Amino acid sequence: MSASERPSEDSLIARFFAPIAGDGALGLKDDAARLTPKPGHDLVLTTDALVERVHFLPEDAPGSIARKALGVNMSDLAAKGADPAGFLLSLALPDGWTETWLADFAAGLGGASRDFACPLLGGDTVKARGPLTLSVTAVGQVPTGGMVQRTTAQVGDLVCVTGTIGDGALGLKLRSTPAWSEGLLPGEKAHLADRYLHPQPRHQLAAALRDHASAAMDVSDGLAGDLAKMMRASGVSALVEADRVPLSPAAAKAVQSSPDLLDLALTGGDDYEILCTVPQKSLDSFRQEADSIGIPLSVIGRVVPGSDRPVFRMNGRERHYDVGSYQHF
Amino acid sequence: MSASERPSEDSLIARFFAPIAGDGALGLKDDAARLTPKPGHDLVLTTDALVERVHFLPEDAPGSIARKALGVNMSDLAAKGADPAGFLLSLALPDGWTETWLADFAAGLGGASRDFACPLLGGDTVKARGPLTLSVTAVGQVPTGGMVQRTTAQVGDLVCVTGTIGDGALGLKLRSTPAWSEGLLPGEKAHLADRYLHPQPRHQLAAALRDHASAAMDVSDGLAGDLAKMMRASGVSALVEADRVPLSPAAAKAVQSSPDLLDLALTGGDDYEILCTVPQKSLDSFRQEADSIGIPLSVIGRVVPGSDRPVFRMNGRERHYDVGSYQHF
Repeated sequence: MSASERPSEDSLIARFFAPIAGDGALGLKDDAARLTPKPGHDLVLTTDALVERVHFLPEDAPGSIARKALGVNMSDLAAKGADPAGFLLSLALPDGWTETWLADFAAGLGGASRDFACPLLGGDTVKARGPLTLSVTAVGQVPTGGMVQRTTAQVGDLVCVTGTIGDGALGLKLRSTPAWSEGLLPGEKAHLADRYLHPQPRHQLAAALRDHASAAMDVSDGLAGDLAKMMRASGVSALVEADRVPLSPAAAKAVQSSPDLLDLALTGGDDYEILCTVPQKSLDSFRQEADSIGIPLSVIGRVVPGSDRPVFRMNGRERHYDVGSYQHF
Repeated sequence: MSASERPSEDSLIARFFAPIAGDGALGLKDDAARLTPKPGHDLVLTTDALVERVHFLPEDAPGSIARKALGVNMSDLAAKGADPAGFLLSLALPDGWTETWLADFAAGLGGASRDFACPLLGGDTVKARGPLTLSVTAVGQVPTGGMVQRTTAQVGDLVCVTGTIGDGALGLKLRSTPAWSEGLLPGEKAHLADRYLHPQPRHQLAAALRDHASAAMDVSDGLAGDLAKMMRASGVSALVEADRVPLSPAAAKAVQSSPDLLDLALTGGDDYEILCTVPQKSLDSFRQEADSIGIPLSVIGRVVPGSDRPVFRMNGRERHYDVGSYQHF
């Protein structure tokens, strides 16, 4: 389709985005959206950008890209104990975009928006002669003063993580250098691939985190690096039992056949699980709440004094991950 | 500087962005920012993306690009009658970025943030193999129910515009095809160039708009097209006296020597002035408030019934601008 045959931005918005927008978006016909905050609540604001070939691959389905762009932001809100209130989308389309692509993208975005109960409030669509780049800004709400921070882990607290770690990183590796995966069953490979493509943000855990966690963040850049960040920000360190880090059956099988993959699982990122610290006395209640909404929880270690990088104990050895988080630079 | 010599994202944030961040940004050390809304206020949310070669030129000073990215969002907030509360920045850096560039960018952003009383709350920085792309999401506040909308212009209202129109478009044209500008003095050329580079959002007019305007938007895509959008959204039309559209001395001189440039002035965009409709009975008070803060105001026409595109009367002829707004597609 040549540029002259393409619809205007206004027409794109009306066709693809207005149907999935929330009330506060005012039909996406205004310069801005309106949001009436809940009385007695703070807002929590986060923004995450995704770039083609960095955060997703060009062949990924448009609906999956949309779901991931919203999902990674929902994961940040969840980690702060915030309930979603809405989001704005900034979309820089590459030269070769098509209406079909955009229709599929909007459909995926609408579905994710419903799943996360997070309405589209506004956005901007521009054409850029570069890779597809999306930026989502999400707004959440917590009771005043209730935001769970990253800087408040206390010595003695337990280090907990939801779900399983490493699936997303292994799912990505499946697509680049899959030799290691020969021993996996098709269903196991599909599980790993899906975890990379479709992060499952733990937005339902927000209230339990507010009630019980002393500190939290989401695991997006790798467990080891993200834990190091949270401990450093809190002025403490941590001791982790590496064999308690929860692995899915597929990841466990991969690590069993190629032990080096454990490093990838612990540092690779794209997990979108919640990493949090919980006082010992709150663990039972926290676990009960997590259980009641079907979110698996593992205690993997303990907060200790010090300013060193967290120690991962495995097979009698102690391991620091000096490289730390995956850097998008 | 090779990639391996480059600082990590965390180090960039700590060096360049944390010093200009507001309290709610929590030192930019957390996943998200916190904002405690003013009781009895609604939030107004807007996002605008800027792409190199579309919204600014590669040779523009980094500080100017930063100021423009924030300024165009402040202009949207102002048009909605909202006072700035903070902003988030998503920055996709091209391959060739340097620390010097980023330091200058952050300095410009910090200055603009102070000028607009709009603190940096958070952001995301990624590397993209494409043109520099920025997306700013700005949050403003209005007393509950007080957001000035685009859809509420009433037949009989006066159509008003702040400042002067066309300078930004002529400033951009100076840089591509400057032959028409031979008759301009250096100071006149500098004025036009500066209006393109450094939009002056009318954030100080927010309260007066809340008090007096029936509808408003900012002029970013050209007066003719933006007026058509606002009238269509309100289910009305407008009659504009083209000779009342305020031109700066530089723009007036340019139009006098090349009359065709009037079309560019009316349709070219990059004005970041406020276009609003005001009931006749409110005009005097509105003008008084605008005067008191030094913002020039011109009445250029009137809202009329109908669904046609607005008519611009000039020299006895009637002109519709069918092409309308500049499209970034």
